[in-house]
Amino acid sequence: MATLTHVDENGQQPRMVDVGGKDITERQAHAQARLRFPPDVARILAEAGFMTAKGAVLTVAQIAGVMGVKATSTLIPLCHPLALNGCKVEIAIDGDEAIIDCRVKCTGKTGVEMEALTGASIAALTIYDMCKALSHDMVIHDVRLLGKSGGKRDFGSSPS
Amino acid sequence: MATLTHVDENGQQPRMVDVGGKDITERQAHAQARLRFPPDVARILAEAGFMTAKGAVLTVAQIAGVMGVKATSTLIPLCHPLALNGCKVEIAIDGDEAIIDCRVKCTGKTGVEMEALTGASIAALTIYDMCKALSHDMVIHDVRLLGKSGGKRDFGSSPS
Amino acid sequence: MATLTHVDENGQQPRMVDVGGKDITERQAHAQARLRFPPDVARILAEAGFMTAKGAVLTVAQIAGVMGVKATSTLIPLCHPLALNGCKVEIAIDGDEAIIDCRVKCTGKTGVEMEALTGASIAALTIYDMCKALSHDMVIHDVRLLGKSGGKRDFGSSPS
Amino acid sequence: MATLTHVDENGQQPRMVDVGGKDITERQAHAQARLRFPPDVARILAEAGFMTAKGAVLTVAQIAGVMGVKATSTLIPLCHPLALNGCKVEIAIDGDEAIIDCRVKCTGKTGVEMEALTGASIAALTIYDMCKALSHDMVIHDVRLLGKSGGKRDFGSSPS
Amino acid sequence: MATLTHVDENGQQPRMVDVGGKDITERQAHAQARLRFPPDVARILAEAGFMTAKGAVLTVAQIAGVMGVKATSTLIPLCHPLALNGCKVEIAIDGDEAIIDCRVKCTGKTGVEMEALTGASIAALTIYDMCKALSHDMVIHDVRLLGKSGGKRDFGSSPS
Amino acid sequence: MATLTHVDENGQQPRMVDVGGKDITERQAHAQARLRFPPDVARILAEAGFMTAKGAVLTVAQIAGVMGVKATSTLIPLCHPLALNGCKVEIAIDGDEAIIDCRVKCTGKTGVEMEALTGASIAALTIYDMCKALSHDMVIHDVRLLGKSGGKRDFGSSPS
Repeated sequence: MATLTHVDENGQQPRMVDVGGKDITERQAHAQARLRFPPDVARILAEAGFMTAKGAVLTVAQIAGVMGVKATSTLIPLCHPLALNGCKVEIAIDGDEAIIDCRVKCTGKTGVEMEALTGASIAALTIYDMCKALSHDMVIHDVRLLGKSGGKRDFGSSPS
Repeated sequence: MATLTHVDENGQQPRMVDVGGKDITERQAHAQARLRFPPDVARILAEAGFMTAKGAVLTVAQIAGVMGVKATSTLIPLCHPLALNGCKVEIAIDGDEAIIDCRVKCTGKTGVEMEALTGASIAALTIYDMCKALSHDMVIHDVRLLGKSGGKRDFGSSPS
Repeated sequence: MATLTHVDENGQQPRMVDVGGKDITERQAHAQARLRFPPDVARILAEAGFMTAKGAVLTVAQIAGVMGVKATSTLIPLCHPLALNGCKVEIAIDGDEAIIDCRVKCTGKTGVEMEALTGASIAALTIYDMCKALSHDMVIHDVRLLGKSGGKRDFGSSPS
Repeated sequence: MATLTHVDENGQQPRMVDVGGKDITERQAHAQARLRFPPDVARILAEAGFMTAKGAVLTVAQIAGVMGVKATSTLIPLCHPLALNGCKVEIAIDGDEAIIDCRVKCTGKTGVEMEALTGASIAALTIYDMCKALSHDMVIHDVRLLGKSGGKRDFGSSPS
Repeated sequence: MATLTHVDENGQQPRMVDVGGKDITERQAHAQARLRFPPDVARILAEAGFMTAKGAVLTVAQIAGVMGVKATSTLIPLCHPLALNGCKVEIAIDGDEAIIDCRVKCTGKTGVEMEALTGASIAALTIYDMCKALSHDMVIHDVRLLGKSGGKRDFGSSPS
Repeated sequence: MATLTHVDENGQQPRMVDVGGKDITERQAHAQARLRFPPDVARILAEAGFMTAKGAVLTVAQIAGVMGVKATSTLIPLCHPLALNGCKVEIAIDGDEAIIDCRVKCTGKTGVEMEALTGASIAALTIYDMCKALSHDMVIHDVRLLGKSGGKRDFGSSPS
């Protein structure tokens, strides 16, 4: 049965799992987060060209997401620091929601799902920060992994 | 009407809002995030004493949340760096869910809601990281502000 | 006569100057950096809408500049960490050059000229990074302080 | 009786103590660390002008100490982030030992003893790093607080 | 004869040593730090279940130690940034002392002894921070390398 | 024709370029920055032994430059985090100018020119910080890449 890997056998001592014996493979992960605006806020943002070329809000959030990906191992205590091959944060507006997709790639011994999840979360928090003058009734939800590949067990859809 | 404060009048130039003219007040914020485990994972964790005194998983997540609160202005591009009076991250398990409450206080010219939201998010991501060997079917949801006080406009319930 | 403040009287011991006895005042600083493109690169960029609404390059550089302002005390060894009231990074294109203006404000005991200079420099380096696939013949020049106020001695033009 | 302040009444929940009600005072702290070299290494270093104007080793360690002081709240999980008035790291060689003194000042609601202790420790670790090609038989010892003032309870000798 | 590697031949210019020509090997290091409590403080802590399942103090210190390991190259000026395979911080209480053991592994061109020493030091400082409300008469001592392997010269006992 | 690599085909979405398919090679880069002092300041500094063994100013700037090299991927949003083989920051005084040379090496899939440029810039800003008590009429100029090798296209003179 699967067990918790970050705590040792007596269940208390946190540790950064030793990945020294794992293979170096091409790893990818794709995570998503969603942010729901109140309807009137979504309308104001849309009218303000939220999604258009004027769209500074979304660009700032994308950049924050990429930098969040790179900061992951300084934020999640037992995450391994690792070199990345690339990452991409894309944000789409669907009705009253912003949908953030974060894809990360590396060549290494450990997966990049935490990087993808962290990048998506930081991008969502940044949208919140930039829109909170309009309302605090925004909610970030459905932060989840959509796919990962390259590890012992793949998950979900192909992340490419 | 309320407007976007982080972009200037021509709608494109991101900036860190000037709070120089605002009053120094006691400010508090309370944010929450939830992480839903698959039922069998929740059961394994409960049997492993997830919530008990052995509960390293939750302690690690709390610490990560506190450090996330302190890292907020390095993560959210247009957030102000500020001194904090204190913060507290509490995690409760309710059925198949972990409920993370993050409360932050400062004496200053700008609110701490982004700090509270970031702390709750980082704590949730840390629980995900520590449990992902069991399953990747976890979802972080309902990341929201429950209350803030001390600013121009209070919000929600009293955060104390 | 003016003397070096960051080294002590025997000329060797670096130190962070004690500002405990200084007044808390409203302080501002305005720094500028310039980046010169090769003429053909400037033309390609202009044709690609470098300055227009599509202008992701400049928005990324602005954000990097703001985050660079906030990182100043972690980069410049003897700089004081301080809370900021706000900052703004503006980028204009003038012929073959990008002109970066960075303005920073704080209420405190020490000036923010290093923050303004660092923000302008990081923004310029970011433009370089984003355009270097076109050419490495770019040069960053004329990084200088244009004005500061609020300290013992004002300098240059009013930074507001 | 004194009690642990960083854990709450049921003894488990780590938190950043709320200092909102404390007075703003002038606070100082003075910490010291010592690093003992093997005798032959101390001799080689002395002959190489370790302490003289050529003394890059000690200057690098001083700078690392100052930057360590500033990084304290990112390293010690429950430390408050705070603005500093100044700090000074001095290193003397006494026989086979380097003696590092770190003094920190702030105007605030919480003491700076952790900043002083962290700065002294990082400076000592930096000396270790720069000399380890000669020997790994160095020991850092007697890292302690020599004095603090400005808080509820002063400690030790006056840190000025 | 062994010489200082971080300064060049004219003895002044600090540099990050070029490890480009070194072999990639499995490297490990084991460092230890000790923190001595005043006897009455040690007794209060023991009675408060310092070492038991309630032991938040030690868990917080372990996490801080792991994060300190990862921060090493940002703290020690001439240390190489590197990817880590894993690390473990263990804390035992022996009479009036806390004994912190930090073990680090990587696959790379340079050793991880500074990472192990830094992790042990930060964990010790964190214990200090969490117990200082009881007393400031704690002392961190005997910070030393117990073993390293995988480099040109092994040292001490096997660090595994 | 060369195109912008950091934005995707529709010209707006910033991304960290995927280097997964690139070869691992020995890469080097050499960047330079210059800081011009007012003549009287240059004279005061020279008389104070700015360049001599007492030269704390230059040593502090060198260290800041090395640490700036290591911080590059946290400062430049779309830069890849990477392991470095080594780096060197050298500062010479030529008349009224400080000339900073920064050389960086890595074994990897992407170049280190941004690291070299960032290191040179941070060193120059540090000199500015340490001398600004004498004058704010300093200018940083001619920040440029002098050479790079190991990538698809070499540039300039050999950086070794």
